Amino acid sequence: MSAVPAMRIERLLERIGQLGTIGALPGGGVCRLALTEEDRQGRDLLVAWMRALGLEVHVDGIGNIFGLRRGRHDVAPVMIGSHIDSVATGGLYDGALGVLAGLEVVAALDDAGAETDRPLVIAAFTNEEGARFAPDMLGSLVYAGGMALADALAIEGIDGVTVGDALSGIGYAGDWPCGAIRPHAYVELHIEQGPVLESEELQIGVVEGVQGISWTEITFEGSSAHAGTTPMRLRQDAGRAAMELAVDITRMAEQMGNGQVCTIGALSLHPNLVNVVPDRAVMTVDLRNPDDARLRTVEAGLTELIDTVSARGGITARRRTLARFEPVAFTPAIIDRIDAHVGRLGYSKRRMYAGAGHDAQMLARICPAGMIFIPSQNGISHNIAEFSSAEDIERGVTLLLETVLDLARVEDADTIMKGNG
Amino acid sequence: MSAVPAMRIERLLERIGQLGTIGALPGGGVCRLALTEEDRQGRDLLVAWMRALGLEVHVDGIGNIFGLRRGRHDVAPVMIGSHIDSVATGGLYDGALGVLAGLEVVAALDDAGAETDRPLVIAAFTNEEGARFAPDMLGSLVYAGGMALADALAIEGIDGVTVGDALSGIGYAGDWPCGAIRPHAYVELHIEQGPVLESEELQIGVVEGVQGISWTEITFEGSSAHAGTTPMRLRQDAGRAAMELAVDITRMAEQMGNGQVCTIGALSLHPNLVNVVPDRAVMTVDLRNPDDARLRTVEAGLTELIDTVSARGGITARRRTLARFEPVAFTPAIIDRIDAHVGRLGYSKRRMYAGAGHDAQMLARICPAGMIFIPSQNGISHNIAEFSSAEDIERGVTLLLETVLDLARVEDADTIMKGNG
Repeated sequence: MSAVPAMRIERLLERIGQLGTIGALPGGGVCRLALTEEDRQGRDLLVAWMRALGLEVHVDGIGNIFGLRRGRHDVAPVMIGSHIDSVATGGLYDGALGVLAGLEVVAALDDAGAETDRPLVIAAFTNEEGARFAPDMLGSLVYAGGMALADALAIEGIDGVTVGDALSGIGYAGDWPCGAIRPHAYVELHIEQGPVLESEELQIGVVEGVQGISWTEITFEGSSAHAGTTPMRLRQDAGRAAMELAVDITRMAEQMGNGQVCTIGALSLHPNLVNVVPDRAVMTVDLRNPDDARLRTVEAGLTELIDTVSARGGITARRRTLARFEPVAFTPAIIDRIDAHVGRLGYSKRRMYAGAGHDAQMLARICPAGMIFIPSQNGISHNIAEFSSAEDIERGVTLLLETVLDLARVEDADTIMKGNG
Repeated sequence: MSAVPAMRIERLLERIGQLGTIGALPGGGVCRLALTEEDRQGRDLLVAWMRALGLEVHVDGIGNIFGLRRGRHDVAPVMIGSHIDSVATGGLYDGALGVLAGLEVVAALDDAGAETDRPLVIAAFTNEEGARFAPDMLGSLVYAGGMALADALAIEGIDGVTVGDALSGIGYAGDWPCGAIRPHAYVELHIEQGPVLESEELQIGVVEGVQGISWTEITFEGSSAHAGTTPMRLRQDAGRAAMELAVDITRMAEQMGNGQVCTIGALSLHPNLVNVVPDRAVMTVDLRNPDDARLRTVEAGLTELIDTVSARGGITARRRTLARFEPVAFTPAIIDRIDAHVGRLGYSKRRMYAGAGHDAQMLARICPAGMIFIPSQNGISHNIAEFSSAEDIERGVTLLLETVLDLARVEDADTIMKGNG
């Protein structure tokens, strides 16, 4: 009989640190853009670790890497995954934690000499960040059938290289068909990338889904005019309209509450000179809400406000949707299962929505899926200062391990309604 | 006995067009930055015209050019002036009109065989625009004793060349002492550079003075944060604070009325990405008012608003004064004299303040000074589309001629209180 499997934090931190040396930036953090030489080295290291743990390694046509640990039964596996690509100034935890936590789960099982009923698969998905190739979450999108492989391979990156050429170039154009494994369940451990858990002094976020996202670019066109010689009443100030819109839509979002967020992240004035009334202002509005009906409400508010400030300022406005994603709800049975284990382990927690996109939302299209968040120090991510404490990581992986062991039992097949196999 | 002097519009337009070929830009307009090769060619042409009109040409140490027409008496002259340098994408009228109108006044007198009691001086001041060397109005500033010549010559331009080297390079480091001629009166004809006259369908602006100018740069510093994962209440959004300030100070200025203008011409967000809450926002506020007490009131309002938005947003603000000029009032006797001639000529007019700086405000430090504005089509200036109609130019120069003839009478010496000679 086997011992109770337990994760070993030092081993995991060692791996996080080692992967973090590949593409390391001065001062900390990494630049490991998808399908670059750095990504290749990271993949090679991951594959070597998988092989050392006795996993069967498979790579599919979009370069997703899978490490398979056989179970007692040849049925649909439980998949643990995330990604190892980073943004240009990324941290050591975003993505890498979820993949390496999967390896740690396997290592803990190996330590204990434990088998599972279901197979386990550790997955690393290609180009989750979207920093080199758009869209983000590309590997999991293709895996879930959301984009044809041929279309994905033809995508050109910011450097003009296609996904297909980049994949071949680093030797990760695999031969497995995309989506070959339809998991029984998918669980992803990730850093929160936000300040909520830390500010509320909570240890675990049980993720109910991913917020809906609405990105709009608005271009206001007025007339440039001399700041000294043009009376206020004779101006058609594109900058003023943009800033009025920014203030009003932000206030509206704030008053809506219920998780509604609004960000004016980018604004450019033309000619952007101290003494010239701007004739053009281009701004972005990022709206997110876990509830699609509420998101549509604030989008309608945005449309009204654009009309209001344009009419008041005597200027024109053009709008362009940069992105629009409906909210994704994770599988209640998975969420509840995670929640139950949090309770048993005695961790403090809250339920929450992910504010950013994750591979789990693509997997949710084809299997029951859920996510676990641990706190991010100061809420910082996509930054070399990104950090999560060893204690938080240990709790997160322990919870992941317990949840996966639970989901990997065959008798559980009945309770996951959407599962197959 | 001489005929009544009358200006000839074709001759003046010919000169405006010919000067406009020097530094001509594709599509119209000119680039004749101060003390460049183009400026040299423009100066050479001006000097040639002056000599052809029999004027005695003098150049002072800062490169100001003077064309002297002797009068019946050797007393303080009436000076007509402006500048022939331009901004990088300038028009044909800003500055050039005032200088070439002076030549046209001389030519009209010559046509009529007319003498004046006082000498006349046509002046072209160096680097009025400030597009290559800061500060603007440099030549007239030095002329009026506001800056020592040596300090002015040491100023480095945007291309790293000093005023002194540039002056020598084009052969316009003259030997006349700066301020050698203290005029009896100074009159400058200029395009309005704004839309007021056109919008009110008026022909002449009788300029009472130059607005006071207050330029402030404000830097807000907050924290960058993920647009999706950071709740509104946990943000320190530097961009939001900047935009709230922009909206509030603009509204305050508008409500003050009385010629108060406010322009947020420049705003830069960092990192300026759609999905990142800005951690830094740098903006400019351009406030102008003809009345210094009112200008101080709105400046105090700005200070309060900076504190308010910073406190509300939980962020810090730094402010820097980029420029602060008190309003300049032109000499009432000159203003009234111009106004009287407008009435006699039957032109429609209004009194107004100049919104931009002009050489006349420097000359006002040492002699009675005034300005005449004519309409700018669509209020456009500092732009290749800058245009004023032949009719408007003709009216402006006729008014200038009448005013100058009046001021050039010796019996008038008593009525100009601040005059000397």
